[in-house]
Amino acid sequence: MEKRVIGVTELALRDAHQSLMATRMALEDMQGACADIDAAGFWSVECWGGATFDACIRFLNEDPWERLRTFRKLMPQSRLQMLLRGQNLLGYRHYADDVVDAFVEKSAENGMDVYRVFDALNDVRNVQRSIAAVKRAGKHAQGTLCYTVSPLHTVQGYVQLARDLVDLGCDSLCLKDMAALLRPQPAYDIVKAIKTELGQQTRVHVHCHSTTGVTLVSLMKAIEAGADVVDTAISSLSLGPGHNPTESLVEMLEGTPYTTALDKERLSRVKDHFAAVRPRYTAFMSAITGVETEIFDSQIPGGMISNMESQLRQQGAGDRLKEVLAEVPRVREDAGYPPLVTPSSQIVGTQAVFNVLMGKYRVLTGEFADLALGYYGRNTGPVKQEVVLAAQAQARKDPITLRPADLIPNEFARLRDEAAALEGFGGSEEDVLTYAMFPGVAPGFFKTRPEGPKNVGKDPTQAEAERKAGAPGADALRIPIRYEVKVGGKTHSVQVEPA
Amino acid sequence: MEKRVIGVTELALRDAHQSLMATRMALEDMQGACADIDAAGFWSVECWGGATFDACIRFLNEDPWERLRTFRKLMPQSRLQMLLRGQNLLGYRHYADDVVDAFVEKSAENGMDVYRVFDALNDVRNVQRSIAAVKRAGKHAQGTLCYTVSPLHTVQGYVQLARDLVDLGCDSLCLKDMAALLRPQPAYDIVKAIKTELGQQTRVHVHCHSTTGVTLVSLMKAIEAGADVVDTAISSLSLGPGHNPTESLVEMLEGTPYTTALDKERLSRVKDHFAAVRPRYTAFMSAITGVETEIFDSQIPGGMISNMESQLRQQGAGDRLKEVLAEVPRVREDAGYPPLVTPSSQIVGTQAVFNVLMGKYRVLTGEFADLALGYYGRNTGPVKQEVVLAAQAQARKDPITLRPADLIPNEFARLRDEAAALEGFGGSEEDVLTYAMFPGVAPGFFKTRPEGPKNVGKDPTQAEAERKAGAPGADALRIPIRYEVKVGGKTHSVQVEPA
Repeated sequence: MEKRVIGVTELALRDAHQSLMATRMALEDMQGACADIDAAGFWSVECWGGATFDACIRFLNEDPWERLRTFRKLMPQSRLQMLLRGQNLLGYRHYADDVVDAFVEKSAENGMDVYRVFDALNDVRNVQRSIAAVKRAGKHAQGTLCYTVSPLHTVQGYVQLARDLVDLGCDSLCLKDMAALLRPQPAYDIVKAIKTELGQQTRVHVHCHSTTGVTLVSLMKAIEAGADVVDTAISSLSLGPGHNPTESLVEMLEGTPYTTALDKERLSRVKDHFAAVRPRYTAFMSAITGVETEIFDSQIPGGMISNMESQLRQQGAGDRLKEVLAEVPRVREDAGYPPLVTPSSQIVGTQAVFNVLMGKYRVLTGEFADLALGYYGRNTGPVKQEVVLAAQAQARKDPITLRPADLIPNEFARLRDEAAALEGFGGSEEDVLTYAMFPGVAPGFFKTRPEGPKNVGKDPTQAEAERKAGAPGADALRIPIRYEVKVGGKTHSVQVEPA
Repeated sequence: MEKRVIGVTELALRDAHQSLMATRMALEDMQGACADIDAAGFWSVECWGGATFDACIRFLNEDPWERLRTFRKLMPQSRLQMLLRGQNLLGYRHYADDVVDAFVEKSAENGMDVYRVFDALNDVRNVQRSIAAVKRAGKHAQGTLCYTVSPLHTVQGYVQLARDLVDLGCDSLCLKDMAALLRPQPAYDIVKAIKTELGQQTRVHVHCHSTTGVTLVSLMKAIEAGADVVDTAISSLSLGPGHNPTESLVEMLEGTPYTTALDKERLSRVKDHFAAVRPRYTAFMSAITGVETEIFDSQIPGGMISNMESQLRQQGAGDRLKEVLAEVPRVREDAGYPPLVTPSSQIVGTQAVFNVLMGKYRVLTGEFADLALGYYGRNTGPVKQEVVLAAQAQARKDPITLRPADLIPNEFARLRDEAAALEGFGGSEEDVLTYAMFPGVAPGFFKTRPEGPKNVGKDPTQAEAERKAGAPGADALRIPIRYEVKVGGKTHSVQVEPA
């Protein structure tokens, strides 16, 4: 009997180190593995996205475009894949359509092949422009279903979303489970329903994190239901808040009607490479190493809890975490059940903190008001009327129902002018886009770029010596976003870090 | 639709800390979790076995019988379960039948309910006496299929073994995967075949370690094939060389036709308890925390590799590990493909080291000669003639085909006399059995027993301070077994530790 070959997307170069070591891995520490990754037989190699781009210019003094070109050179046989936040591209706001077009065009030119495009609210209007741009560039457009659990999220709802994405011209779909909430049975049911209702030729990829410990089983059931490609990370960069190990997937399928056709010898070398690199980034490693299943009940991703804890401590209210944890599902419900993923997880979490500290919806963050009023896009369910009214009053804006980016006039020319005025600006469209994505960070990066990459990994012996000497830890390096909020004449400072 | 309830055996109190922290957890650190474990709804609670018994008297100055009685008192609603090495009981040699009878009788009296009886070679003659004793005591006898992979191990072979065990009167069967080699498809095939050929009423339990990362999927497939009970460990004592997390199993089954019926609130408290306890045993933690899939190809469990490495280093031959790793599968084949589990893993591994250092089968360990000559029991396949001849010559013994214990006359009376002569002997049959199991360790334990339990766990702050001060680490505490071997007038010392 001929086995069905399951494609594999290797996550080591993007989501794996983003999830495990705060996206700090330097290109230098990846290059040695590229030849083996290129030859191992992966369907694609994920290697670029918002956080890696951000970390490059914020922490590593690396040009992210140069990183992409290097990957292109070192992995000539592989499909390179990136994660794109729809109309947000790699940044934290909606961009005008001309910036979306330019970004996709330039990244394709620099070597990108597969674009996984998602919107945190699953609003297809927020992905349609970038998907069209990918198609125009002749590249692979992958539409994303952000998986979450709520009374409003049903198998049929996901099938409808899948249909809408296919109608946009997507070459494939991705069921994206960023919080490790996808249990085996819904994994099976959703993939099966998509294949049945949209046709077996509809390509379905499945992306799961491993936090809750159940999702390798979910990949198995998704494969049984017909999934074409699944995402995993080489074992030495796997598990915890990361992903299921690539080698375990290979072994799991032995003896079944499926196979990965991956080269185990190559995988073994990639594993050894990152097993040697990993200890250099101990200072940035996630504290979570085992399994956390609480999220099934709390709906709150682990990273979000630590953010809220630190917000509360800064307000001298570290003892009120329990109240905040109970408030999160209520805020989420009031906001129409958004999936909790960047940026909606931070927006909902911070509002829950505000509700507990200052009274229910007495103060809204600007972001929460925007979410309630439709400025992030269409919410899954209706937003509670009380919340809409509070948002209108505080933000002095009306609710919208149109595509949010329709309100944004073309801006590339302006962004180019602004970038051109910066010290160290190189004149390329790539530099304009770097500035457009991270206007707060790019100016500093352009200035220091000539000094070349700064690897923040450390020899474990050196790191241990510094630790003993009481040197500042990794946390000191992180740059959080601060909110300043005035209530009754008193200023509240609240700090939010990306999950 | 009524869901099928899957029973769960919780491993926290025995195999979990044995696998993760060298069996060092003190009873004191378990007691606080017992009420919640007792009420959580487990099918059984594994809490006793050879290594826990050994560690109690060797490292913790704890009476293992007192530990059992304490569990009995603290978990009155639960089936207490133990692992019994057939005719070896909890020790490292075959015992006479009267000792087997006495051990089972006394442990039943002290509160044991379920006996999982296994033989490293899957020779049913080595388990029949203990199974008969369990039945006589009115307790639950579970026959074990030690799972391994070789050209001689087939689904039909396991079904035949299952049939033989059922014929002995076993109340249930356990498919025991101590090396995390059980992939999903064979898990399904073996359980299905047993259920089909021996009848659906045949109770099948499945025990997997998590080392290779695939075995939660194997548990899912085993459940789909009809498995009645699966073994897991609470998440804070799970993964790595340990087991799949109990909470992940619970969540995995949500939405499927199966359920565990476990109380999640109770599980959450058990988790918190051991999450707090675990850091006290950092010094004893396994170095392996992630996933290791190499064993599928090498057939060599992780613990065995580190043993062989340390043997080689002591011989100044640390650079010859690769040769030894290549030799292990050959030695295993020559010995008729024993499963690699205590003690066969140590016996095969040490012989491979000898072969590389001193020439192929030029020197046999006494244990390897015994294995080759049938003194451990019937091997799966024929032993290579050359090996049998070398074993006969070196050990000056003939091969046997009878049940090894048939050569051992009753010995309980003699053991009682020997024990009675020891300082601190308490006069009970339990003390005689403690002496019988570990004659080298019991005398010291009897002497120091009045001083009471010694908890070797350490407050993490204190442990860190000692580490900085260069205090001796945990390794210094371990007591390995030493072989002294003379070759051409030169003495070779080889050291073996339990895996």
